Amino acid sequence: MIFAPQQSDTRFADTTRLPSIKFLEEPTSDTWIEQAIAHLDTILLDHSHCERKAAANALNLMCRYPSDGPLLRELTRLAEEELEHFRQVNEILEERGIPLAPLNAPPYASQLKRQLRHNEPERKLDLLLVSGLIEARSHERLGLLATHLPEPDLAEFYRSLMASEARHYGIFWILATHEFPRDVVNRRLRELAQVESEILASLHPEPRIHS
Amino acid sequence: MIFAPQQSDTRFADTTRLPSIKFLEEPTSDTWIEQAIAHLDTILLDHSHCERKAAANALNLMCRYPSDGPLLRELTRLAEEELEHFRQVNEILEERGIPLAPLNAPPYASQLKRQLRHNEPERKLDLLLVSGLIEARSHERLGLLATHLPEPDLAEFYRSLMASEARHYGIFWILATHEFPRDVVNRRLRELAQVESEILASLHPEPRIHS
Repeated sequence: MIFAPQQSDTRFADTTRLPSIKFLEEPTSDTWIEQAIAHLDTILLDHSHCERKAAANALNLMCRYPSDGPLLRELTRLAEEELEHFRQVNEILEERGIPLAPLNAPPYASQLKRQLRHNEPERKLDLLLVSGLIEARSHERLGLLATHLPEPDLAEFYRSLMASEARHYGIFWILATHEFPRDVVNRRLRELAQVESEILASLHPEPRIHS
Repeated sequence: MIFAPQQSDTRFADTTRLPSIKFLEEPTSDTWIEQAIAHLDTILLDHSHCERKAAANALNLMCRYPSDGPLLRELTRLAEEELEHFRQVNEILEERGIPLAPLNAPPYASQLKRQLRHNEPERKLDLLLVSGLIEARSHERLGLLATHLPEPDLAEFYRSLMASEARHYGIFWILATHEFPRDVVNRRLRELAQVESEILASLHPEPRIHS
């Protein structure tokens, strides 16, 4: 499965045409979407948590790299978009009478974060690529919801998220290539993508965006 | 010095008229504004850091209290506004040729956070009130910049921030009164405000928003 970052942001003047980048090593299985549709309320609630966590992750990266102008600019915009999606999902939860509640998170992100190297500059590369992988998987799975959900309004909502979600994981790759040679970025991306797929294959299937 | 939260947000139907709340125990001294104007580039850079940290603080609170609908709704909006201010300050930095750079933070916030009680629900009350106090002090000092800066464009920019900055500390007080009796909130606020003023009085004066 090939995911090519769709990048039309002219602020990245040198990246108007990106090569196709293989973000995800393994596509999501059919059983995930079947379980998601069978537990739609839980998936919607988990999606709300994912948007909030994505915004928080962007802010954490911004606090960690306060001198990196392109990173601050792009992740400010990304955080704003995630907050907007968070608001939209929460409106859907409210319309459907799904109460806000904590959900136990699958160990997906915590296991991925074990791959982060400790020293800079490698840590920055890994943080960007792990963030990009999580976004790429979100994009793939929200896309599955857009395609398979039987309710037209909800499917349309998920379609409406696709463009910005696709841009998000492209942003992390582009930020990585600002500082690291492209072959270094892509080699590390392939290593982390392999781990990401292995983690997903090892998890107990639960109705979660990242399970 | 009395700061009354200006609250016109009709989503808080029960709080269209707020009592005057004394947020800050001691006003900022004249020496702060003199030092700020003498080191304006540093103050602008520190202001950028403050906006980013305020957005990050909102996200952290949202992650800590994922079931609190009013908190999520209000702090989503607050984080969006802080990110917008962050973007605006960074544009000013760029126009003035001030490079983005880390700045050592004064121990203001870390010392205030030592006041946080460890157990819920007291921790939540303290987190809301400490967040509100930091916002109230920001509001006071950005207001001093709006009044005293000799450059009209920059003074106007700071005036433009006043309405939302004033609303921000009101929001934290209102969220606190959603869960705690008003007299409990105000008593704890007075305790924390006393500590906040003592911390500021004890700090080595530096050109920072919170020094």
